[in-house]
Formats: sequence, structure tokens, C-alpha cells
Amino acid sequence: MAETESCDVIVIGAGLSGLRAAQLLARRHDVIVLEARDRVGGRALAHTFANGDSVDIGGQWVGPGQDRLYALIETMGMQTYPLWDHGDRLVHSRGRLGRYRGTIPKLAPHVLLNVHWMMTRFDAMAAQIDTLRPWDHPRAALWDSMTVAEWMRRHAVSRRACAVFAAGIGAVFAAEPHDVSLLHALFYARAGTSLDNLVSTTGGAQQDRVHGNMAGLADRVAQTLGPRVRLGEAARTIDWSGGVSVETGKRRYAARRAILAVPPSQAFRMRFTPDLPAGRAGLWMRMAPGACIKCVAQYETPFWRDRGLAGQAVAPELTVRVTFDNTEQGKTAGQLLGFIEGDEARRWSGRDPAERRAAVLDAFAACFGEQARHPVDYVDRDWTAEPFSRGCYAALMGPGVWTAYGRHLREPLGPVHIAGTEAATRYFGYFDGALEAAERAVAEVEAALEAS
Amino acid sequence: MAETESCDVIVIGAGLSGLRAAQLLARRHDVIVLEARDRVGGRALAHTFANGDSVDIGGQWVGPGQDRLYALIETMGMQTYPLWDHGDRLVHSRGRLGRYRGTIPKLAPHVLLNVHWMMTRFDAMAAQIDTLRPWDHPRAALWDSMTVAEWMRRHAVSRRACAVFAAGIGAVFAAEPHDVSLLHALFYARAGTSLDNLVSTTGGAQQDRVHGNMAGLADRVAQTLGPRVRLGEAARTIDWSGGVSVETGKRRYAARRAILAVPPSQAFRMRFTPDLPAGRAGLWMRMAPGACIKCVAQYETPFWRDRGLAGQAVAPELTVRVTFDNTEQGKTAGQLLGFIEGDEARRWSGRDPAERRAAVLDAFAACFGEQARHPVDYVDRDWTAEPFSRGCYAALMGPGVWTAYGRHLREPLGPVHIAGTEAATRYFGYFDGALEAAERAVAEVEAALEAS
Repeated sequence: MAETESCDVIVIGAGLSGLRAAQLLARRHDVIVLEARDRVGGRALAHTFANGDSVDIGGQWVGPGQDRLYALIETMGMQTYPLWDHGDRLVHSRGRLGRYRGTIPKLAPHVLLNVHWMMTRFDAMAAQIDTLRPWDHPRAALWDSMTVAEWMRRHAVSRRACAVFAAGIGAVFAAEPHDVSLLHALFYARAGTSLDNLVSTTGGAQQDRVHGNMAGLADRVAQTLGPRVRLGEAARTIDWSGGVSVETGKRRYAARRAILAVPPSQAFRMRFTPDLPAGRAGLWMRMAPGACIKCVAQYETPFWRDRGLAGQAVAPELTVRVTFDNTEQGKTAGQLLGFIEGDEARRWSGRDPAERRAAVLDAFAACFGEQARHPVDYVDRDWTAEPFSRGCYAALMGPGVWTAYGRHLREPLGPVHIAGTEAATRYFGYFDGALEAAERAVAEVEAALEAS
Repeated sequence: MAETESCDVIVIGAGLSGLRAAQLLARRHDVIVLEARDRVGGRALAHTFANGDSVDIGGQWVGPGQDRLYALIETMGMQTYPLWDHGDRLVHSRGRLGRYRGTIPKLAPHVLLNVHWMMTRFDAMAAQIDTLRPWDHPRAALWDSMTVAEWMRRHAVSRRACAVFAAGIGAVFAAEPHDVSLLHALFYARAGTSLDNLVSTTGGAQQDRVHGNMAGLADRVAQTLGPRVRLGEAARTIDWSGGVSVETGKRRYAARRAILAVPPSQAFRMRFTPDLPAGRAGLWMRMAPGACIKCVAQYETPFWRDRGLAGQAVAPELTVRVTFDNTEQGKTAGQLLGFIEGDEARRWSGRDPAERRAAVLDAFAACFGEQARHPVDYVDRDWTAEPFSRGCYAALMGPGVWTAYGRHLREPLGPVHIAGTEAATRYFGYFDGALEAAERAVAEVEAALEAS
């Protein structure tokens, strides 16, 4: 391990953020990307079914306002297509199935009004947040001392209103309402325009998909980088005492600057020389991600469409709480997508795969009929079991974290600049945010390299 | 690094828990203790003043019910002495100073009654917790979905009652009420008998000190282990695929079993082969510790005693929220001890030491008069800045952690057994709990070694 390889900039992490940062830098600088896994893409990952169809079993969506992501998709020669969003939606509650249209399930009028009022009120508060400095809001201390669960308990008139709102929170954060600080939830909603936008399909954050998968986008960006990307090299030690030196267990790399594009809790695992300042360590050790198992069943056809169903269900009491018609445009085979989220994901993590599959198909059958119990193929992915992710979709802030530590989130650590979706101010937790953070980190690095 | 040293049991961490485990095992087994720091003691650490007096700037107390700790102190030939606890206490609030006796500051009767009622109600709930399985309580899901802050907001009749109760929570957890799940707080109180016991001096958890310091106790236990203790060897990689192999960057060690006696968030930083199961990683990455800066000013004499003061003050609005007369029995020089806790500690961490000292002495002066502004010596220690602690007194559970992950807390990880105060069922977060966890882990290891 005596050999040291030198370059201008080391990028740590070959998720979309790190890859995009490297791609931008590579135009003018000598860049090396270090990736712990044996693949690129980070939280973007595809699976190929037996029939050759493929599917994103990591992040997959792109929607209006995510201009950076649409542009990159286009630049890389890929096409988007809309999520299937026609027909009735389903709500499964208390063992009964109801059909509805629009974002909010069909419920008793007082429940419906209450959920609508909660959404409106939540988004009115979110609209006040400066995503660059959430801690500056006059009510930041109060909002950050509360969880979303506490806020819901104050404002929900019934258990059902609570359950429906919680299903929305679960879908957006892959977490329980008590996992998330109200201030963080407001910031997150604001960063993604509004909670309403984040739970919406057409016109919202779940509008479009990518032919060839989001993971394919990461692959294409990686291809432009060629041998600059080094797989299976987890950064273990980062010396930032003068320039940057990174040790991976295989080799040592030296550079003038580095971009750290990994989830915060993974950054916390690395050894820094000199040691991390207390505030940075305190932040990173408090940013555990949400919990999600993404489940996709493949069928001969999207049979639910024949019955006028959109393939979208909300089922707060089932293993799978939210479903989508995940069929790729132009393919014959249909796909149902379901998310196991939050505590339910934690319960199912590590259990027998066959049992998990059966529970997921039970839930699909409860919503879409017995036919759903017999897919031609099936895949699920427990992101909490991935050693270099330990959850998804993104890191969460529990109570107090933003106000006590938030100012360290995007601040460079000497010559180490921070990318990754958790350093975004727009679409934090989304691939679009990963690109925003990459651009900002690249701008910082280029300014620093020019100045020196 | 080719050389591998073999033994029966590797103990990782030379805090009191690891040292005690090694001491017990060393009677019959070949033990090696790996310690990341260049000293033993973990969260026990002493400072020597210019005049030769010394003081614990880590944990220091022992009180009734902590039988394991009293016994070890005696076995190691050390003596305890009572904290100075005579005279009036002070409460500093809204710029005014009040004198009182007993545990709860002198306040308006309705505030006093409310605080007393909150304490009583809290301890009545705590008494119902089975510390082996807090998640089994019928209300565990509800209590774990709340922070202590939410519970306080529901039960406090006034801001002052809130502030006084929060000062107690701050003193016990070195954290803000919103940092801590109600279920965790109830568990913690129950593990330490009651919240009333944990905030008490005479008759409670702050009753006694140790001549020669708690850090001296760790030193003496370490002396019984001699060269078995290896300093400056942080465990980086733990292979637990068959027996245990630990790599420290300097050497490789192999053993049949290991005891992991480090704070959970430090364990999360280590690389495990095979990878940690999701539940264990999920737990460890969610157990960030409290935040505390311990501050001690030394004076020619304990001058406050002449004025009939105990040296104990509660000051919710000052930098230092809680003070004690920390004078060692038999010494001439007086000591005032103050804690900067929770968000206040986070604010002061990393700031100019002289500024911090001035702020602490301001607080001491506000309570004990101008004389307190002029100590002969002063020391403080920011435990959030310690790379191998990153906080104190102990790891905290935020909302949801106990119910989603708690069952993994003490469960062996194959041949790796879990010690450390965070694995205790009695006095979790205290040195007595560190000894309990050590004894339990040693019993597990001995049973396993005999069986194999």
C-alpha cells in the first residue's frame, strides 16, 4: 500500500452526486472517483427480471421542477416516460377497499376536511422556510423541538386522519412521523416545493420514469469517466491537514481538494486526520436514514388496468402501505411496486425472503385481487441491509438536529467539499438534489483551485 | 502488520466496563484489551491542578444502590467520601437568586406543585418499566413515539415548571428534553431507581466521590492487567465469521471470543466482516450521546460555605445550569463544578477557551458572588470533541429507537459480546451499569468458552 496516486480532485462516492461532480470536474481537472461498492449508482440500482425486463429497485422518479435531472437524462441520451396514472386509486382501511380519484383517499367528510386542512397548514408553514438556513425561521426552535408525530397529535381530529397523514409522511420519508423533526419535514417539503408536490404523481415528484432506469443514468455518467472510477475502494482514512490524502485499504490517493458525496452517517464512519470538529461529527452521527424495502412484482400484463384501476393504493394497515403501477411504457409485462416503510420495514428486515414476499403479495392481493398473488417474477430490496447505505431514501433529522448542528451541513471541511443529496437546498433526498449539491461543490472546488 | 497475536478473549475498549471484564476474565483466561486512546478510563478522566490537587473531569459519582461500584472501589483499596451537601441551595431565574432546601427549587406554589406532580407521575410511569424489555410495556409504542419535551408540554402548567423540569432532564441526560424519547427517559430513570434518585445528592446518585478520582479507579484496575492493555490501538475491522479477528492498523489479534465495550456510535464506526445485520447497525447509528462540557474552578477555599451555601445552584438561563461544591474532602482548596449541557454545550463547543471560561465564571459569579470570578485554577472538558466519545454522559435513544431496535442492544453478535454502560439494565449510563454489563458479558463468554 506504499504507492500513492495523485490527482487534482478526489471524489468519494460514485452515486449520482459524486459521478456528476466528477463529470463536471473532468473537463478541466484530473479526477479520481472512489467507490466503496463494486458498482456505481449509490441509491440508484437496477434489477433484471428473468424475461429481460429491468426495473429500478432504488430511486426512480423525476418530476416537474427537477430541471437538473431532466437535463442530465437528456444529455446522456435517455428518455423519460410518465408513470401510469389513469383510473381509480384504492384505499385499504379497516379491511375494506374504497376507490377514489385525486391525491387524498375517499374518507368520511370530517376526516377528509381535516387531512386537507393539515396538508394546507403544513405547506403554509413549509413555504416560510429558507432552505439555506432553516434554523433562522422565528419558530425554528419550537418546530425543531417537535416531531411530526407531535404536530399530528395536535392537529388531527381523528385516528383515521392521523393514519392517512402518516401514510403520506411514510411515503415521503420512509419513516414514522416520530422519526422526523417537524422543522426537518417542513424544510424537506419546501426543498421539494411542497408536501403536496412530494406526494403527487402527475404534476408532482412521482410523475416520470426513465427508460433504461435511473441506475442506467448513473452507468452512463460513469462511462464518461472511464477508468477514473475505482470500484471496491472504500475511503477509510481522510487526511485533510494540507491538501487531501485518502486511504482505501488498497491504495493511497492524494489531491488538492476532495468532494465527499456519501450519506452523512457513512461519512461519520471514516477516520479523519485531524479529527472532525465536534459540530460536524455531531451532525453526521445524528443523520440516520429512513427505512425502506422496495418490492416489485411482475405480471404477464398490468391486469388491474382492465378494471379501471391506476395501480395506486394507500393501505396504512398493510405491510405495503403504498403501491404504484410500475409498468415500463412499451412493455407487455405489468409491474406493481410497493413500499414497506419505517417501522414495518424494520420489522421485515432480515426475515425470511419467502415470508416477506408472501406478505407483500398478500397486500397486493388485498388491493388488486387474487391475481396479484401470482406474479411471474418478484424482487425486493432492503436498503437498511446495505452496508454503505443503511437505509433510504435519505438521511433524516430528528428533533433538535437542524437547530443545533444544521449550519455544518454544507460547510466545507477545509479542502473537503460536501456533495450528496443531503447537502442539497432543492430536492434534498432526491436525485435532483444530488445534482444540485454536486454543482455547488464543484463550483467551490473550482474557485479554490483557481485561487491557489 | 502481518503478525497476529492470539488469545482467548479480546476486550475492545478500556473504559471501566472493558477493564472490569478483562479483570474478571484474566483469572482463568488469556485476555488482551485494545484501547483506541493513549489512556485507559474512557469516560473517567482526571485533571491535576497546578497545586497538585486533582479532579475527575469525566464521571465522578457513586451513590446508594450502586453496589458493584462501591465493591470495586473497596477491592481496589480506595475510599469514598460524601459530596459536600450542607447549607442552602440556590436557584437563579429571571436574573434573581433564591435560596432553598431540598431537591426542588423554591418557586411559586402552583409551579412547585406542578413540578412535584410531574416528577411523581414520571416516576410512577418509570416504575412500570421492565428494564430488560422496555418495549414490552403496553404503552411502549405511545411513549416511544413521544419525546420528553412533548410529555412536558402536555403536563406542565407554566413555562417555569417546564424550565425546572427541563433543568432536571438536562442534568440527568446532558441533553434537551426533545433529544430523548419518553420511553428511554422512563427506562433510564427506572434503571437508576427513579428520576428522583438520579437528581438527588445525599441518598441519591450524586452522593459520594472517590479519593484519588474515578479515573484512578480505572488506572488501578488497568494495573492489575499489566501489559494485557494495549493503548493507541483502535479496533478498525472486526472479523466475526469464525472466532474473532481484530485489526487495529498496528496489528492483528485473534481470539475465540470478544467483548465490545465501547459506546454504540463508536461501534458503528468499525468495519465488520461479515457486515452487521441491519437491526444492529440501525441501533448503533441511532445512539448518539448527550452533550456536556464539565467545568471546574478551583479557589483558595470553599468560600461559599461561610455564607451557609451548599455550592449547589440550578440556573436554567445561565451557561452553566447546575453547579456543585466539588471540594475534595480533606483538601484546603475549594472547587465549584458546573455543567454546560445539551444545546448550550453544543453552542460552546469549539469556541475560544478563554471566552468559555469567562462565561462559566460569569455564571458562578451570578450564583456565588464576585469572588467566584477569580479562581486560582480552572479546567473544563468538552466531551463532544473527544473523537472516541463524541459526547456524554451516555448514548441516548430518540423517539422510536427502543421499540424498533432495542432488542438488539445486549444480544451477542456471534462471538462478540456486548458490554459498556449502554448495555446495562441497572444504572444505564453510569459506571455501576458499566460494571453490570461487564459481569454479564463475562458470564456469557465463560459459558461459551466452557461449552466449546
